[in-house]
This record gives sequence, structure tokens and C-alpha cells, in this order.
Amino acid sequence: MPRWADRDRVSSAGRWDRPVDDGVLEGAAIPKYYAAKIALTVLIDGLGVGAALPAERTLAARMGVSRETLRAALQELAVEGRLRREGRKTVVSGPKLEQPLALASYTEALAARGVRPGRRLVRRETLAAHDLLAADLAVPPSTAVVHLERVLLIDDEPIGLESTYLAECRVPRLARDFDPRTSLYAYLRSVGIELASADERIETVLATPREAAILTSAPALPMLLLNRISRDAAGRPVECVRSLFRGDRFRLTARLLGT
Amino acid sequence: MPRWADRDRVSSAGRWDRPVDDGVLEGAAIPKYYAAKIALTVLIDGLGVGAALPAERTLAARMGVSRETLRAALQELAVEGRLRREGRKTVVSGPKLEQPLALASYTEALAARGVRPGRRLVRRETLAAHDLLAADLAVPPSTAVVHLERVLLIDDEPIGLESTYLAECRVPRLARDFDPRTSLYAYLRSVGIELASADERIETVLATPREAAILTSAPALPMLLLNRISRDAAGRPVECVRSLFRGDRFRLTARLLGT
Repeated sequence: MPRWADRDRVSSAGRWDRPVDDGVLEGAAIPKYYAAKIALTVLIDGLGVGAALPAERTLAARMGVSRETLRAALQELAVEGRLRREGRKTVVSGPKLEQPLALASYTEALAARGVRPGRRLVRRETLAAHDLLAADLAVPPSTAVVHLERVLLIDDEPIGLESTYLAECRVPRLARDFDPRTSLYAYLRSVGIELASADERIETVLATPREAAILTSAPALPMLLLNRISRDAAGRPVECVRSLFRGDRFRLTARLLGT
Repeated sequence: MPRWADRDRVSSAGRWDRPVDDGVLEGAAIPKYYAAKIALTVLIDGLGVGAALPAERTLAARMGVSRETLRAALQELAVEGRLRREGRKTVVSGPKLEQPLALASYTEALAARGVRPGRRLVRRETLAAHDLLAADLAVPPSTAVVHLERVLLIDDEPIGLESTYLAECRVPRLARDFDPRTSLYAYLRSVGIELASADERIETVLATPREAAILTSAPALPMLLLNRISRDAAGRPVECVRSLFRGDRFRLTARLLGT
């Protein structure tokens, strides 16, 4: 006797990576903005990457919805990376960029995938570590810490914002020798620091106004946040890193192995 | 000669895992809702987990902002999991739940952390696989596939929604023998299927109305989406899984090792 109370059904499934039932609950009313979003998804699938959508007024009239409803649907599709603004037009986005979750250089990992990664320095400062930062870097309180804040670029598009914190005594020549447009991990290797492990936390947060302004994305856009503590072979912390990636343009991939 | 154009500064950093400059861009106007959010964050940090916030009218008056501005700030804090509704009250949330990113059972991993994981069956059906699903399961088109959709619970709170797709011929007795409230991976082991690896994609998406209704969360709440293909020791795909976790209540952790 089957233990399941609900009936079996025979239907067909193509896109297992999409929401069940197109995201609509059986028997429940479909919100107008969501019906418009589904209709737009079909339209987008038919157009190619880079194609422009018709003007809002035309689209709203054709779909029989208000401009406000249409905008709510367009906004969700933009947040999810299906559409983006290009000047005055709304165009179909390409797929999200993928980066393997690994203890490897962002720059080196992406260059291997045929895109052109870059970095732009936003801030470089020396801080006196206290509280959490001192504990996480395993240094005494008030130790001098270098903070590098850099925008991560792919093909010149800002895709992420990264703050790296390192105890200055471990990288005393960083300010003189390191070009912040290049891979920090390559620089660390060049001074004999090899990263052996990292602990990372992955979650979703909203962009702050400052982050949105730097990343030229809308405020309150959902972002992927990664907080990392990297260690050398002796288990000593080398860096604390806070990386924020645009949720509309970025996803992570991971290969998991059984134990 | 330093290569950095901007000046060095000496300040102090405690919370390296928080946004730089409290998220406010130097020289730019601070949006009202964001100033209110910062003020509320200080208030929340002072209250304990589970403490109730004053009524909206009282708060708005005390902070000198409109109800609308206050609500925008409260909404962001709810989306980020700092606050949650409890009946008519708004209370301070505990920290996000953490789950290691691993090829292990959700149920087993969380039980080891002292919380009580559970699962509730939403749907069980048999589908004819086509397109992407057939390719990803490495079965011929139209092969019968079992789809299990389950709500993931922690201490009875709905935290995620998971759709698992398996070729029926590999698990012919699933409908008879498997209790969907328990670990699927434990069941697979009991019938001789050992998972050896998985490829996973991690991104952020918005909840659909159906997903929001099932998870009793607000529509368009940012979620963590994981799409996984698991394989046995021979490299044959065993399952395709789409897991959606509430972004306000959940984060992933990963231990990364150098090569």
C-alpha cells in the first residue's frame, strides 16, 4: 500500500531546474504581475540574447495590463538576470556567469573560461584590527591590517565587490609591490604564502546604497555574499574576505564528493 | 613608490563581514529608508533574539520618519532575516541556520547540529521525462521519472522546498517502501545505491507565488537556489534535485581545500 496520500499523476517534465507548475499554486488566484512575468518569459525565450523588448507602452497594450503591472514583472525579470537595461532599451540578458567554488584565484579561474576578468581598486587603507577581525586573523587586538577593496569586472562589466583584510606584518611589501589590478593569490605565492584551506559562508543579502552605486546595479538588488577565511598549510589565517556578487549576473558551481 | 592613487587612512575595523562604511557612499545622499534601516539595526543589536519591536506608529514617531519609510526599512530587515513577523508583532530573529555544502543527507547533517529537521510531502507524481531531464538523468526520452516534492522543515518551521527527480526503473519499490518524511539518501543506500559525486549550481532567485505560499514567506523574497545532479560510483546520474532555501533563514558553509 502506498504511503502517499495524494494521487499519482502522469504528466511530463522538461525543465527540472524551473519551478513546479510554473510557480502557480493550484486553485489560488494568479497575481497579475506574475501572469505578466510568465508571458514575458515566453516572449524572452523566443527572442535571442541581446534582442530589445518592445517599448513599455506597446507591451502593456499588447498584454492588456497596466504599465505598473508590467513594470513589476520587468523588475523581477531584471532582478533574476533575464533582462537588463541598455541605455533606454530593455534587452534580453545572456546566461549568468558561472564560477567554480574553489580555493583558487578569481582572476585565474575566469581567465580559463574565456572571459576577461579584471579588478579596479576602490580603496586601500590600513586599519587597527579589533574584535572579530583580530580574532579571525588570529592577531592581537590593534594589529595593523591592510584592507583592499576592489571591484571585480568581467569584460569590463562590474560583477562584484570584494574587501580583503590581511595582517600587514605578513605582507609588509604589499603596498610597494602588488598591482591591485592583478591576482592577489599570485602575489601571495610570489612571497611564499601558499593558501591551503578556506572556510566560506554563502548567503543572499540586499545591496546597500553604496554597493549598488559602485556596482551600478539597483539598490536592494539580491546579491550573493561570500565570507571567507583562508589559511596557510600551518592552519594560520592569512586573509578575511567579504565578496559580494551581483545576484542577477552570477552563480557558483561546486563539485561535491562522497566521503 | 606606491601604485595606489588614493591616500592611506588609519581607522579601525571590527566587523569585516559587514558592508564598508555602513553601506553609505561618501559624499552621496543617504536614502531615508536606509538611514532608518541603520538606526533599526542599532536598536535590534541592543534587543535580544525574540524581543518584540515597539509598534510601528511609536517607532516612526520616535525616529522622525514616515510610516512608509519605516516599513521599507523593516521590509529589508525582514528579507535579510534580522526581523520576522510573529502574529501581530515584529520580533528580532536568531542567526541564520547554517548547512554545510556537502554530498550528504540534509536530514542527517542538520540532526547532527542539534536542530530537528523534518520533511513534509507536497507532491508525488510519475512523469515522462523529456528534453533536459532525460539528458541530465542519462535516460531515453519518455522514460518514467518519479518526482517527489517535499517541504524541508527545521523545528517545524518551513525553510526550503525540494523537488527530486529519479528514473523509476532505478527505484521501482520507492512508492511502496520509502517514507517521504525520512532521508531519501538513507533509502537509496538501503537499496544499494551509493552517491559518489554531485555537481551543484548555487544562485539567488525570487520565490514564485506558489513557492511563497508553500513556504509561508513573502512573494518575491530572495531565495538560495541549488540545482544538483548526483551520480553513483560508476558516474551514472541518480537524481536531479532543485532545492530552494529561504534566503532570510538559511546560509551555506563550505570547507575549501587547495589542490
